[in-house]
Amino acid sequence: MNPTQVVLGIDIGGTNTVFGLVDEKGNCYSKNQIPTEGQMPPELLLKRLFSIFNVEYKSFNGTYELVGVGVGAPSANYFTGTIDKPSNFNWGYVDIVKLINQYYSVPVAVSNDANVAAIGEMKFGAAIGLSNFIEITLGTGLGSGIVVDGNVVYGSHGFAGELGHIIFREEGRQCSCGRKGCLETYVSANGIKRTVFELLANHNDESELRDITFNNLTSKLIYKAATNGDTIAKLAFEITGKHLGLALSNSVAHLEPEAIILFGGLALAGELILTPTRESLEANLLSLYKGNTKVLQSSLMKSENGAILGAAAIMWNELMKKIQFLSVAAK
Amino acid sequence: MNPTQVVLGIDIGGTNTVFGLVDEKGNCYSKNQIPTEGQMPPELLLKRLFSIFNVEYKSFNGTYELVGVGVGAPSANYFTGTIDKPSNFNWGYVDIVKLINQYYSVPVAVSNDANVAAIGEMKFGAAIGLSNFIEITLGTGLGSGIVVDGNVVYGSHGFAGELGHIIFREEGRQCSCGRKGCLETYVSANGIKRTVFELLANHNDESELRDITFNNLTSKLIYKAATNGDTIAKLAFEITGKHLGLALSNSVAHLEPEAIILFGGLALAGELILTPTRESLEANLLSLYKGNTKVLQSSLMKSENGAILGAAAIMWNELMKKIQFLSVAAK
Repeated sequence: MNPTQVVLGIDIGGTNTVFGLVDEKGNCYSKNQIPTEGQMPPELLLKRLFSIFNVEYKSFNGTYELVGVGVGAPSANYFTGTIDKPSNFNWGYVDIVKLINQYYSVPVAVSNDANVAAIGEMKFGAAIGLSNFIEITLGTGLGSGIVVDGNVVYGSHGFAGELGHIIFREEGRQCSCGRKGCLETYVSANGIKRTVFELLANHNDESELRDITFNNLTSKLIYKAATNGDTIAKLAFEITGKHLGLALSNSVAHLEPEAIILFGGLALAGELILTPTRESLEANLLSLYKGNTKVLQSSLMKSENGAILGAAAIMWNELMKKIQFLSVAAK
Repeated sequence: MNPTQVVLGIDIGGTNTVFGLVDEKGNCYSKNQIPTEGQMPPELLLKRLFSIFNVEYKSFNGTYELVGVGVGAPSANYFTGTIDKPSNFNWGYVDIVKLINQYYSVPVAVSNDANVAAIGEMKFGAAIGLSNFIEITLGTGLGSGIVVDGNVVYGSHGFAGELGHIIFREEGRQCSCGRKGCLETYVSANGIKRTVFELLANHNDESELRDITFNNLTSKLIYKAATNGDTIAKLAFEITGKHLGLALSNSVAHLEPEAIILFGGLALAGELILTPTRESLEANLLSLYKGNTKVLQSSLMKSENGAILGAAAIMWNELMKKIQFLSVAAK
């Protein structure tokens, strides 16, 4: 029997790095996790990773054939194959493709977390069958991956898709990027926390959130309060969705996607965030766009292997593009 | 000698329809103009057009070989090959491809004015060699054509690229689309006129524009006043560019284009509009984007055959994609 072709998906997160083998249908055949230790050189991370992986890969006795490696990492650049000075890591510029090729001489594709999530969603998640969509990652900040005609939009230098930094309010909230009013200061785990504090200041409603400090407040606590019926927490979700829908109406005017898919911690709040986002998007759209763009929750993020699937997907996508190209060309 | 392959470019404008033969290098071999008469059925327009074209094409005695037709028209849809209820025309839905194929059985490609201008710019104008750029058409309103990786972004139904209708100011100026605060109510021939009237109301500076009614004021008159040193007119251009630069900084956060190219009447004002747009764009960009996106004036619009070249370009682009595909596939 021929070996099953698999891609090694590596997701380098701030705390942990997870990796595993994924076939083209999204079956995951192994899964491991090691601490990232971003203060140590990246060479050490890969040494630790491959010392585990090599043992496991050999133990499969030729059942699987490694045909590529996909990497999702902060500040990873698809064009250069490098990880460029990731914040919170002590790494500088890392030629991750070269480092990986020292272990396995197979094709390697890399991109940042948000783009990898978008491709993972397209190959294995809520965007299967879609070729025009936007994946919005609602973490501490707001990341995004834009897909047009089945390909991620990387832009001229690999930096396209920073919707967290569209200027949503002139002279608005201070952003960590040094500017003011960026979308992620309103729509993200951090953004909803800021909205809660604004609401606590402006309203008199009782709220369980009045006993939590700014530093201790998390989007999870806001979610919990909202499900308990806390009016401030519920209003914060409504406002966050309203802001997101308005901002996305401008993205639709650019790209007219079939869907916008919400990924990440805040998206786990489900209809609490999806409903106001949908309503606000529809209300703000130019009439010719109305009813054409769905707002969906990620299904990739609900898989226990979501991060590995995403990382593997970017490589599978490259491999499939080649196969499709050759098959069309042969006709 | 083999005949020169040519595309018939047809630009259907509100008042006139221009058409001519264009080879793949952008040489224009014939040029004709007829009134559009949008209140009459489109069949009549094509009948008049081809009665002129047929005579001319036959007179070339086989020097040129017609390999396709490209059409630029308001509300033309690339996907469906139709012109869909163009405003100011009494047409409903027009299957323009079918109508043209009754005269010549060659491939036909159609799109709206803004997309056609973008492709024309890429084939024959200021965007030669660029594969990621945005063409902004500053006419009565604001149109746009978005190019990613050498292809126009059409979106899921062919309606992508309506940057004139991104919501630039919540609860801002009333737009003809029924909403408020759309970019084109600030940045367009009509937008700058509204800005002039706001400035005349808020400032005491003398201005030659104080003797012109709203209905009589045109962007040409504002341009003329600005070149005469009129402070209100100059300020109006500055503010218009400032608005455009801010809005475009959000487009860059989506797409990271190599350039933004300004086309149309207001773009003829040159540095009066280009300089403030550039400065505002740079000032508002996220730092990783700074210095990477040029703001250029269209060179296509300065050609006397610009409209025909644009319309022909959309068909040439389709033909070249096929040739490139086959040549890469053959390797």
